[in-house]
Amino acid sequence: MMEAIEEIRRQLGEDAVSTDEEDLQTHGFSSWSTVNPDRLPVAVAYPRSTEEVSAIARVCHHYRVPLVPYSGGSSLEGNFSAPHGGVSVDFHHMNKIVQINKADMDVVVQPSIGWQDLNAELSKAGTGLFFPIDPGPTARIGGMVGTNCSGTNAVRYGTMKDWVINLTVVLADGRVIKTRRRPRKSAAGYNLNGLFVGSEGTLGLVTEATLKLAVIPEETSVAVVDFPSIRDAAAAAAAVMQAAVPVQCMEIMDEIQMRVVNQSGFTAPRVWEEKPTLFFKFSGSKPGVQEHIESVKKITAEKNGGKFEFAKNEQEQQLLWSARKQSLWSMLALRKEGDDVCPLTRLDGTGSTDVAVPLSRLADLIEVSKKEMDDLGMFASVIGHIGDGNFHESFMYNKADEGERRKVEACVKAMVRRALDMDGTCTGEHGVGWGKKDSLLLELGAETVGVMSAIKGSLDPRWILNPGKIIDVPWEAGKEKKQ
Amino acid sequence: MMEAIEEIRRQLGEDAVSTDEEDLQTHGFSSWSTVNPDRLPVAVAYPRSTEEVSAIARVCHHYRVPLVPYSGGSSLEGNFSAPHGGVSVDFHHMNKIVQINKADMDVVVQPSIGWQDLNAELSKAGTGLFFPIDPGPTARIGGMVGTNCSGTNAVRYGTMKDWVINLTVVLADGRVIKTRRRPRKSAAGYNLNGLFVGSEGTLGLVTEATLKLAVIPEETSVAVVDFPSIRDAAAAAAAVMQAAVPVQCMEIMDEIQMRVVNQSGFTAPRVWEEKPTLFFKFSGSKPGVQEHIESVKKITAEKNGGKFEFAKNEQEQQLLWSARKQSLWSMLALRKEGDDVCPLTRLDGTGSTDVAVPLSRLADLIEVSKKEMDDLGMFASVIGHIGDGNFHESFMYNKADEGERRKVEACVKAMVRRALDMDGTCTGEHGVGWGKKDSLLLELGAETVGVMSAIKGSLDPRWILNPGKIIDVPWEAGKEKKQ
Repeated sequence: MMEAIEEIRRQLGEDAVSTDEEDLQTHGFSSWSTVNPDRLPVAVAYPRSTEEVSAIARVCHHYRVPLVPYSGGSSLEGNFSAPHGGVSVDFHHMNKIVQINKADMDVVVQPSIGWQDLNAELSKAGTGLFFPIDPGPTARIGGMVGTNCSGTNAVRYGTMKDWVINLTVVLADGRVIKTRRRPRKSAAGYNLNGLFVGSEGTLGLVTEATLKLAVIPEETSVAVVDFPSIRDAAAAAAAVMQAAVPVQCMEIMDEIQMRVVNQSGFTAPRVWEEKPTLFFKFSGSKPGVQEHIESVKKITAEKNGGKFEFAKNEQEQQLLWSARKQSLWSMLALRKEGDDVCPLTRLDGTGSTDVAVPLSRLADLIEVSKKEMDDLGMFASVIGHIGDGNFHESFMYNKADEGERRKVEACVKAMVRRALDMDGTCTGEHGVGWGKKDSLLLELGAETVGVMSAIKGSLDPRWILNPGKIIDVPWEAGKEKKQ
Repeated sequence: MMEAIEEIRRQLGEDAVSTDEEDLQTHGFSSWSTVNPDRLPVAVAYPRSTEEVSAIARVCHHYRVPLVPYSGGSSLEGNFSAPHGGVSVDFHHMNKIVQINKADMDVVVQPSIGWQDLNAELSKAGTGLFFPIDPGPTARIGGMVGTNCSGTNAVRYGTMKDWVINLTVVLADGRVIKTRRRPRKSAAGYNLNGLFVGSEGTLGLVTEATLKLAVIPEETSVAVVDFPSIRDAAAAAAAVMQAAVPVQCMEIMDEIQMRVVNQSGFTAPRVWEEKPTLFFKFSGSKPGVQEHIESVKKITAEKNGGKFEFAKNEQEQQLLWSARKQSLWSMLALRKEGDDVCPLTRLDGTGSTDVAVPLSRLADLIEVSKKEMDDLGMFASVIGHIGDGNFHESFMYNKADEGERRKVEACVKAMVRRALDMDGTCTGEHGVGWGKKDSLLLELGAETVGVMSAIKGSLDPRWILNPGKIIDVPWEAGKEKKQ
């Protein structure tokens, strides 16, 4: 391990590798994550180019040292943790836009650019284009490719895999490949984009990506619609999907989350009803937006009597939407002394807040899960990208209280199992990481996970790329320790 | 080989396997295909269930006999040919809808149902839903998954990979896996849907698929717009994309193809200008369609003076669209004695009619390719899904004339190379099959194709699944013979 680090320093320069204790902590532990292993990376490398990443990989391949990619550090399932030690590869310096191809509606970027920064640059360059995938505010392209992330825009624009034109990838042994040239559509050979997106750095390290861009809509409108019950809200959302109204976003928040929005003061002086609520973002041409609003009003009227509150201006639109996007932060701001907020809690890896089910089952799943959470008598709430059948549970609980921890754990396990029973998935957008391997196995079975393992073994026979994520390292299964 | 066939007969019944000469010919040779090997399959198996497919695979795996999947038989690059002999697996009996989940907007089907039949059934069941991927009229779901096909609706609805929720797959050794349960969105593990879609039966045999469905639009309108030159038409199409007008379809046909439409009498008594033409299909709500038409009129007015001809009624819409969809058949109907029409010609595998490039290069590519074709002095024309940057060349030529054959071959090779030089792909929708392996290598390079080969080897180490397609069988490269 130490020889590998010295060799990387020799090839890339003294500054290219850090073994600073704080650095190792930042790159191996996350207080947002549902799980953290009890090991940290041994070093953090800071490459500046594809060639340097390739050099690092060659060295680590030679010495059989694990390589764990790191960009925004905002993932939730221990995706960038280092349960087998090794080198964290932080793409910090590789955060540039390489090329904007306006006429082709695409952009070439390095992995450590944030999606918000990318959009700011596209705006500054006057392209009239934007990148529509919007996960947590601090997420960066590399990690977004890794988890096949999505966000509030996914109901209209799809997920990360739908926006990748090509990837430059450093393989386990340092070879560099490009998955495609730059056509928006191709049927030429295996869809390697589709394979690398969502593989969480276990098959290769992405050093450059060409992404499709979308045209910024002419008009945007944000509306808030409350309902008597969470079931009514979920049913209305399913009806909007079944009527194919092309909303840009459709989010559900329960009465607890609405209280958080009010208490956080994000939208002050505006105060919202603390009831189960759907948030809509409409966008398109001016007449198109009006038409979509009318359609949704008609669909929701039956359950809520036609109440429909609009953000009054662009500033309120942004405030309202950021209240939704930053719901986790809002909760954090409200936490009682001694409570520890995280989107789930530090469970032992089988549970998670993020599941997705077929549309028709969503109202059932949310209603039952919500009731179970209420019965816990803790601060717990439901929030979700309801148009995708994807929702999250959030808990606030006292980590020191073993009883609370157990209740939360049981409740989340039940939710994942219920989602699977409804033909759903254990994660709609956060990925498997280190935290959900058991759930993945429960979801797909040993044969299907075995196919993933065979593919992994074919591209990384020494199993050095982000080992222990998605699937167990075959010869070390069951040996992992969690905090 | 013979022992394997006897064993399959023993397990599945005498009727389950045919060695009839005509059967072998139908399953190993296609007059539509650009290439045909000089071998045929040795037998054709007709399974009736996933279990029977699994049994066939187990036997063939044991005896190391190639397995080649067959559904609609409409592919164009020798995708279902049997260059290494073996057993053609015809899914003929597996052509049912297993389940319609209307509220979830999805459907479970067997591989041999045609997309047109599927839509007819969805209509008969009064679902209000349809499956939007529309390749050649006789294509079936199995092959559509295999080639990641698309069609005229792709500019709005994307390609096959965007509509697959899960697949049941029989692996090379007979194991059966399911890629996912039934959520519309998932980030759980490797995206096996994305990998199997487009793998042309080289990684597994698909025996069942769950597909997303779309809501049938309220209103549809078809319009025809002619232009002074093919460059003007292509540039107008790019401008429509850059303005993000959500047309359902946008097709380009050159003056030659318009003449074919007129001469075929498909739309009689209506006769069209024999000029480079864009065909538009608009769909959505009534006011939405009007708005999209106005937007496109404005964009195209500069080049064509605002001429915009609409199909007068639904019947004419259908006729017009079928004239586009059946352009190949129309050409066939017009061929002179002694000519042999195929979408390309039987070339030696490096060329193809179907390429795709970034939007901004489309006008250049079409103009130059068209000029080169005109210079050939043969019946040759350009037609394409121009919104995707995807277009086709079609030739009519005399196979017996060696000089013509050579000219066509050179011309097509030049077109593929030109598309690659423009950062495009050698195939936007037909797949690689047996015909375009050299082009794929030229497009992506040996390292990237090597990654595909490693994945193939990990799932099918005996290389029995559709061997010789997409990538060469490692130990038999260069030994293939083509007709």
